[in-house]
Amino acid sequence: MSRAINFGAGPAAIPLQALERARDEMLDYAATGMSIMEQSHRGSAYLAVHRDARERLERLLQLPPTHAVLFLSGGATTHFAQVPMNFLKVGQTAEYVLTGGFSEKAQEAASFYGAARISHSTRDSDGVYRRVPNPTELPIDTTAVYVHTTSNNTLFGTQFREFPSTGNVPHVCDMSSDFLSRPIDAAKFAFVYAGAQKNIGPSGLVIAVASKEFLRSGRRDIPQIFRYQAILENDSLLNTPPTFAIYLARAVLRWLEEEGGVLAMEARSKAKARLVYDALDAAKDFYDAPVELESRSRMNVVFRCSNPVRDEEFLAQAAARRMVGLKGHRATGGIRASLYNAVSVADARALATFIKEFADRKG
Amino acid sequence: MSRAINFGAGPAAIPLQALERARDEMLDYAATGMSIMEQSHRGSAYLAVHRDARERLERLLQLPPTHAVLFLSGGATTHFAQVPMNFLKVGQTAEYVLTGGFSEKAQEAASFYGAARISHSTRDSDGVYRRVPNPTELPIDTTAVYVHTTSNNTLFGTQFREFPSTGNVPHVCDMSSDFLSRPIDAAKFAFVYAGAQKNIGPSGLVIAVASKEFLRSGRRDIPQIFRYQAILENDSLLNTPPTFAIYLARAVLRWLEEEGGVLAMEARSKAKARLVYDALDAAKDFYDAPVELESRSRMNVVFRCSNPVRDEEFLAQAAARRMVGLKGHRATGGIRASLYNAVSVADARALATFIKEFADRKG
Repeated sequence: MSRAINFGAGPAAIPLQALERARDEMLDYAATGMSIMEQSHRGSAYLAVHRDARERLERLLQLPPTHAVLFLSGGATTHFAQVPMNFLKVGQTAEYVLTGGFSEKAQEAASFYGAARISHSTRDSDGVYRRVPNPTELPIDTTAVYVHTTSNNTLFGTQFREFPSTGNVPHVCDMSSDFLSRPIDAAKFAFVYAGAQKNIGPSGLVIAVASKEFLRSGRRDIPQIFRYQAILENDSLLNTPPTFAIYLARAVLRWLEEEGGVLAMEARSKAKARLVYDALDAAKDFYDAPVELESRSRMNVVFRCSNPVRDEEFLAQAAARRMVGLKGHRATGGIRASLYNAVSVADARALATFIKEFADRKG
Repeated sequence: MSRAINFGAGPAAIPLQALERARDEMLDYAATGMSIMEQSHRGSAYLAVHRDARERLERLLQLPPTHAVLFLSGGATTHFAQVPMNFLKVGQTAEYVLTGGFSEKAQEAASFYGAARISHSTRDSDGVYRRVPNPTELPIDTTAVYVHTTSNNTLFGTQFREFPSTGNVPHVCDMSSDFLSRPIDAAKFAFVYAGAQKNIGPSGLVIAVASKEFLRSGRRDIPQIFRYQAILENDSLLNTPPTFAIYLARAVLRWLEEEGGVLAMEARSKAKARLVYDALDAAKDFYDAPVELESRSRMNVVFRCSNPVRDEEFLAQAAARRMVGLKGHRATGGIRASLYNAVSVADARALATFIKEFADRKG
């Protein structure tokens, strides 16, 4: 058995240490004689895991007491709808900043609940997003109930390096694809959410970090299971949470802390992205990397061969080197290398070397 | 390492064979060099798992072509709300048959969307449910958009032996706690849903079996991610599904087919329930089993010691014999033995023997 080098965009690579732990504990978690997934979510074994996962997140994000961690089920797409269900009513306006395919979906879901105004879009006339807006390009309607942004765009490979200021308007941010890859100032956000399957663990789990005040402001005329405030009041145990996914996420968080936390992840992210973008830039005639320099994502490096027939060959030769998950999103085609936390600098270096060799051989 | 005998009510025991498979494949699924949870949900490795899980369910339930399987996220509680969101509008009425705590929750969630009429309740004046209604006790309003029932009541230990006929009114049924423990005539149901963590796999996954015609009748003025019809049209891949949970469920379904399918599970269920109830009935003065004979659940055997101070001792001595998960629900107290599919006849026999011995020693 040799492990692949997984550049998939999500579900994505998980640190080996977390998988080994899950394997070793599969039949018997902590001498209970049961897998963690066979344990009651009200029992002491699981509750200790649940609490530890939450506390690790609080530490990793240096969460202020004004903010709390929620474990939610579904995916980010679920919360594209559940966020406006909680915070947007008919007659109110929420602002959506469109920087890619998933922010479009978020805006569309919100439009079922109230006015989901597109305050800005960086979509070019050909449907491609090549940059994120400058903070100055974002005039915020101060009467909006929230502003929604997407921190990193998985499909097109753009990322906010600095987040726009939203003034007094609550800032809701989908951080699915770069959560825990860098420090954030949680106090500046009203509601951050992230599908687990990029940087945290298995799909089916969403982690949210939210202002308690913002949660309190949510609607009460919706079923309890949809109310984030009710989830908070029940420490994410209002119903049976996805216990195995939270257990696995906790194993990833433990690895992440041992590796040096989000600052270490950020340093690695920069190094990994530099290796790959530098290799692409050094072979500018051979590869196309369409994203503007200052908007380039450190998480998802999107490119293609200038001669598009070469893309398939690139992917096949990469696969022969055990580098997988490089195929671009079905909506965009081309090539995409995702460099989430579990992808090592050595993995990125191997890819950079291959990018250079392939161009040298074919160019 | 010795495995516990897990009588937990959910999350609950999972067949050893499925856990062993998950353990063995954790670092490398099918020679891909990755765990199944690290694979794209659009990739061939995962898609084969997804399809196989769906097809096994279709076979196990002998699903007619009028009906389809959906993989959903969240828990049954999520769908207490999502079902009426799809099928109930202001001005319409749905009928709820209350037979326990979870049907109360389902009715409450529905009341946010339209009239959720309690067509019948078997709740006694002390708040306890001791039986399910006879079919004749259920006068159905033929103008209702659906009738909602709960096939098995985990908290109080009651179960429909025969389902009431709902005539032309679509029958929606929460089968969370007895799904796949017996054959069902799927054609008689418009929408069956079941949280996975009792008989199918890990929490965070819900399996639904639905009439395609009923799904088509659902509302379209809700976000796509909540529309069951949209989930069906996308073969439960509208967004990233809980892939590891589906993978594990598939391993359980494979075990279930190898063991002889739902008829074999039903035969075992009867045998297991008989062993435990017979032991309780043989020590009538020592134990209280409050559920009426013909409503007794084969899944959750609810009882207590007539002298309630003995309950704690019972639980402690059982735990010393590696029998765990026997504590009653926090809302009811007492003792509860859950006999889901992964609990063997030998496990039930061990419990029955202990029930007898404990009464002999203390009685």
